[in-house]
Amino acid sequence: MNKFMNESFLLDTDCAKKLFNDFAKDMPICDYHCHLSPEEIYENEQPTDISQLWLSGDHYKWRAMRSCGFEEKFCTGNATPKEKFLAFAKTLQFCIGNPLYHWAHIELQRYFGIDTPLNEKTAEDIFNRANAAIENGDFRPRTLIKNSNVKYVCTTDDPIDSLEYHKLLANEEKGFKVLPSFRPDKALNLHLEGFPEYIRALEKAADMKIKSVNNVIAALCKRADFFNSAGCRISDQAFDYVPFEPAEEEELDIIFNKALNAEALEQIEIDKYRYRVMLALGKKYSELGWAMEIHIGAMRNNNTAMFNSIGADTGFDSVGDCEIAEPLSRFLDALNTDGALPKTILFNLNDKDNTVLATMLGNFQSAEAESIIQFGPAWWFLDTMDGMTAQLKTLANLGVLGKFIGMETDSRSFTSYGRHEYFRRILCRLLGRWIEDGWYAYDEEIVKEIVQGICYNNAIKYFGFE
Amino acid sequence: MNKFMNESFLLDTDCAKKLFNDFAKDMPICDYHCHLSPEEIYENEQPTDISQLWLSGDHYKWRAMRSCGFEEKFCTGNATPKEKFLAFAKTLQFCIGNPLYHWAHIELQRYFGIDTPLNEKTAEDIFNRANAAIENGDFRPRTLIKNSNVKYVCTTDDPIDSLEYHKLLANEEKGFKVLPSFRPDKALNLHLEGFPEYIRALEKAADMKIKSVNNVIAALCKRADFFNSAGCRISDQAFDYVPFEPAEEEELDIIFNKALNAEALEQIEIDKYRYRVMLALGKKYSELGWAMEIHIGAMRNNNTAMFNSIGADTGFDSVGDCEIAEPLSRFLDALNTDGALPKTILFNLNDKDNTVLATMLGNFQSAEAESIIQFGPAWWFLDTMDGMTAQLKTLANLGVLGKFIGMETDSRSFTSYGRHEYFRRILCRLLGRWIEDGWYAYDEEIVKEIVQGICYNNAIKYFGFE
Amino acid sequence: MNKFMNESFLLDTDCAKKLFNDFAKDMPICDYHCHLSPEEIYENEQPTDISQLWLSGDHYKWRAMRSCGFEEKFCTGNATPKEKFLAFAKTLQFCIGNPLYHWAHIELQRYFGIDTPLNEKTAEDIFNRANAAIENGDFRPRTLIKNSNVKYVCTTDDPIDSLEYHKLLANEEKGFKVLPSFRPDKALNLHLEGFPEYIRALEKAADMKIKSVNNVIAALCKRADFFNSAGCRISDQAFDYVPFEPAEEEELDIIFNKALNAEALEQIEIDKYRYRVMLALGKKYSELGWAMEIHIGAMRNNNTAMFNSIGADTGFDSVGDCEIAEPLSRFLDALNTDGALPKTILFNLNDKDNTVLATMLGNFQSAEAESIIQFGPAWWFLDTMDGMTAQLKTLANLGVLGKFIGMETDSRSFTSYGRHEYFRRILCRLLGRWIEDGWYAYDEEIVKEIVQGICYNNAIKYFGFE
Repeated sequence: MNKFMNESFLLDTDCAKKLFNDFAKDMPICDYHCHLSPEEIYENEQPTDISQLWLSGDHYKWRAMRSCGFEEKFCTGNATPKEKFLAFAKTLQFCIGNPLYHWAHIELQRYFGIDTPLNEKTAEDIFNRANAAIENGDFRPRTLIKNSNVKYVCTTDDPIDSLEYHKLLANEEKGFKVLPSFRPDKALNLHLEGFPEYIRALEKAADMKIKSVNNVIAALCKRADFFNSAGCRISDQAFDYVPFEPAEEEELDIIFNKALNAEALEQIEIDKYRYRVMLALGKKYSELGWAMEIHIGAMRNNNTAMFNSIGADTGFDSVGDCEIAEPLSRFLDALNTDGALPKTILFNLNDKDNTVLATMLGNFQSAEAESIIQFGPAWWFLDTMDGMTAQLKTLANLGVLGKFIGMETDSRSFTSYGRHEYFRRILCRLLGRWIEDGWYAYDEEIVKEIVQGICYNNAIKYFGFE
Repeated sequence: MNKFMNESFLLDTDCAKKLFNDFAKDMPICDYHCHLSPEEIYENEQPTDISQLWLSGDHYKWRAMRSCGFEEKFCTGNATPKEKFLAFAKTLQFCIGNPLYHWAHIELQRYFGIDTPLNEKTAEDIFNRANAAIENGDFRPRTLIKNSNVKYVCTTDDPIDSLEYHKLLANEEKGFKVLPSFRPDKALNLHLEGFPEYIRALEKAADMKIKSVNNVIAALCKRADFFNSAGCRISDQAFDYVPFEPAEEEELDIIFNKALNAEALEQIEIDKYRYRVMLALGKKYSELGWAMEIHIGAMRNNNTAMFNSIGADTGFDSVGDCEIAEPLSRFLDALNTDGALPKTILFNLNDKDNTVLATMLGNFQSAEAESIIQFGPAWWFLDTMDGMTAQLKTLANLGVLGKFIGMETDSRSFTSYGRHEYFRRILCRLLGRWIEDGWYAYDEEIVKEIVQGICYNNAIKYFGFE
Repeated sequence: MNKFMNESFLLDTDCAKKLFNDFAKDMPICDYHCHLSPEEIYENEQPTDISQLWLSGDHYKWRAMRSCGFEEKFCTGNATPKEKFLAFAKTLQFCIGNPLYHWAHIELQRYFGIDTPLNEKTAEDIFNRANAAIENGDFRPRTLIKNSNVKYVCTTDDPIDSLEYHKLLANEEKGFKVLPSFRPDKALNLHLEGFPEYIRALEKAADMKIKSVNNVIAALCKRADFFNSAGCRISDQAFDYVPFEPAEEEELDIIFNKALNAEALEQIEIDKYRYRVMLALGKKYSELGWAMEIHIGAMRNNNTAMFNSIGADTGFDSVGDCEIAEPLSRFLDALNTDGALPKTILFNLNDKDNTVLATMLGNFQSAEAESIIQFGPAWWFLDTMDGMTAQLKTLANLGVLGKFIGMETDSRSFTSYGRHEYFRRILCRLLGRWIEDGWYAYDEEIVKEIVQGICYNNAIKYFGFE
């Protein structure tokens, strides 16, 4: 047996070891999509214990714990930090093959210097050692970010956000940059509760009246300009599928007014509004030189009882299975026909869509940038050994892997940068295997360019950072 | 080359061998879903020859034979046992990579003591040796079940079934338990021929008049109570997709009466009726503490000519590709909102749905049981090396593999228990590889708990057996 | 490290090497589906340079180059041959894991005797060496075909084609046969521009008036008879999904007349017309003993701007994701019910459909031929290591791999026969691994029959060639 998760973890050929150690390991990190709180980064508070760090906001862990039959008090409830940690440890030992298991141990090793495998027998000892490490060390957010060699943190922000913490950080923090990303989901979700209130808030943020869909668009564009001035270079939006439903202005305003009055909407009405707004936003992103991220395929808030009890993003989302190919193609084509297709990153949550997305790229590549249309890294539920390997292989088979902009964490946790290490090990494992097997000719310069490109350089170039 | 299918078959690491030999191999079997005939188990008749045992009811084998161009007389027709066996042998040699090939050889080795590979050259000799073994040995159903170390056989039974053989077996057979499962498909398939007659039969079985959908529900619940008293703890239903179409009682009764009059129904009408009945049944199962199995994605009776000639379940079914995620989620949520979500096992026949199901689980896990929502083992067409491995990996990636209730045969054959051995070898191969590669920390006690849990203990605990 | 793409390329076990070298390598090629130009084969002109050979018509290469940010002039434009080749070389080095990389090197090795890996450093030297090889050698189409050991080339031809070059070749070329295939897509695409003109051309070719759908069918059948007399044994058609929409003759003629008047059509109208015509064609194919190829799942001409600029088949197609199972089943069943289901080869472009197709086969197999319904080889975007391996495994799991008719190039290039070598190496790798691992009993005769069957013999027998 190999030693458990040692320095050769996942690196099963000499070539993989070389690629990782010589080229990948020391590259900085550009975490171009995450859900970290800029306020928490700015406030930079030391956590009290490992349970706060690990278990206070991590729906991945809560889901696993619930799957082992632990009550809600051990997840989001009021059990003690120690009770929660012991429950998690007892869960983790059954999570063989789950990325949680690897993430947890990478974090224990890298941030806490603890090599002991975590299970119910070792839990109490590890709880104490980790908390001692926190007590005697520096586990503040900015320290964790800097020690992880992160150069760019791109947060996810609502268009009405004041970006005050981004501005404060821009002035004070020179070790890394925290840039906002523009996520207009609330302005697109006209069918959800709270839409009218959101439009009122958008009016205020944009300092203008919003009486029509064109007003919505104008307000969002105003906010995009504001975000741009604060260093934003990326937008992000989530869809179960990207709609393509052209409609006339008059009809769109009727739909919009129904939404403002909280009237029920047909799916096609929702799609018409969304298509119109996204088309305008796409043009705006293109004009600003932004990248447009599209996350496709999440099915959210499936458990109404738990949603009513503890709200969204608490571990009750799963993967949808809509058809996505045709309307997505026509949406991108509409932008392209207008000469206004921005840099675009397509993410899928259902791996059945890997082939659709990886071939969609090729329809719209152009000389404006290297791989201007990107197949985003395996995300959320697919952020696993198998999911990442499948995304890399599909992209390699169907596109140009060497121009891939690589990994982001999509995380809410300050210790999640181990996921970049995990990704890099998987990348080097795959490339190393191909090279060892004689499937690709080894040329040190070229292979180095590919590996370091995927780890960091391609993203920096793509987003126009530095 | 390794020796062909020897004791190390599929066990490609030392760890895999240890897991299988020390932990998995000798665990009993809980075959919690199958299509064995309780009457045949009770009658316990010795087969006449291997063709009767292997070829009289096995649509997997017939499909393969038809794919090799053999006429129907060698499959379901009146060729001699020897002709059929020779045709099957000639088929099998072309089935490289097909589980039939492995199942057949496991059965030859374990039940007949024959190690010779089966092909057209060896067929006659093996036919004779196997028949001699039958002549001189005990191949009666109960002996095969006991020798396979099976403790629970859960058959699949119509709500109108009298369960007489289950009762007889409960009295007479102490070596293993044969428990009924409640499969109300005929009461749900209001659009199929024979529905009105079925409702009449249900009236009789439940000893009540059925004039409305509520009457249907009441009758089924009455039968569920009766099944429960006979030891039933599991229900099973099959859908191409699980519908979510709430409707009013009045409309439902109109639909029901159309069905009773054999009038044509719209798909949405079918879905409304089914949703209503399933919602009520789900609550009943929850009340009884039963597990609700849902088999999703079969497309049945595709060949009308053969259906008219030899009927259903003869090898003319295949895999559908409906969207399944959203209505399934809303159905489970509706039960959950009412506090009436039973233990649920979700099976998919199309592997494109693996990710949807494996993430659906997490939406509804709770402290009522460990992994109260289960991702059922790879089933029917997916009951292959690749299909089982994919199911295990997907569950491991997205849920908690250590709490999986494991394999069932879904079989109509008394020699199919080799499929549990096949599954266990694949399980130990996968876990062994992960441990050898340093991806999981080996702790004898914990790993033993996981392996024996998946082989037997988790299922026993989950279903409340013993 | 293994030597880069040497004689053991992809053959990672002794058994794989033996299967490839002793059984597969020297088998002839039956390229039963391609897009070669019969005119170019007949004219048999020597190419001027490697850029003409490689880059003048290959949308795979153009897509990769566009993904690396190269302008259109390097793809379809007027850059010099050398500029184009250098741009391609610089692209290729980033295509790690892409079949282009393997295809290019197989072609360099086999046709040009060049073992050097192609990248930006070696590009100029290889450009010169390859051009010298062309200048001093024979790279005419027929020579390339004969040197590749090709016995049958089945082109793809419109029903109105005169087949003059096929006839000329039948008289003059004795080294291999060039047979037409019947591709009636233009007669099925009633919703596309040019349909009325096409019907006029079909009138002329069939020498009859076309005023109704029945006339369309009669004209196509007349042309099918003509194709048959020219040696055609295969038809081919492309669908995003195969429709099943029975309709009355009267309604069909209304739809047809709308199409002739270029009026807008509903999707269901398109489907009704197509279903009717395909049903009639299927019967005709059955009568003629032809094989019916159905290519499912391409989404074409996604980039309107590029379509308007450089037309179809230039690298702007991708993979669709429609539901396909049910109407396909019912279409095949309708033919089967009439006793008129021809030999059928089902190809999918979205790998999510592998399981659907591989199980669909079994619904309609019969004693008329060995595996009369075939799962076509991995095609276009799936014609990769992973795609081919997945197709082989899925077919092995769910059907009878030993009766598979194997590979075709689907190519427009005279040097693409290396793809058959690539396929055979992948096939032998897979079978070799299974045998080495003891999953299949090695019997030289049987294994040889399987390998040579899949390489060539099964196709020859299936199509009735020789």
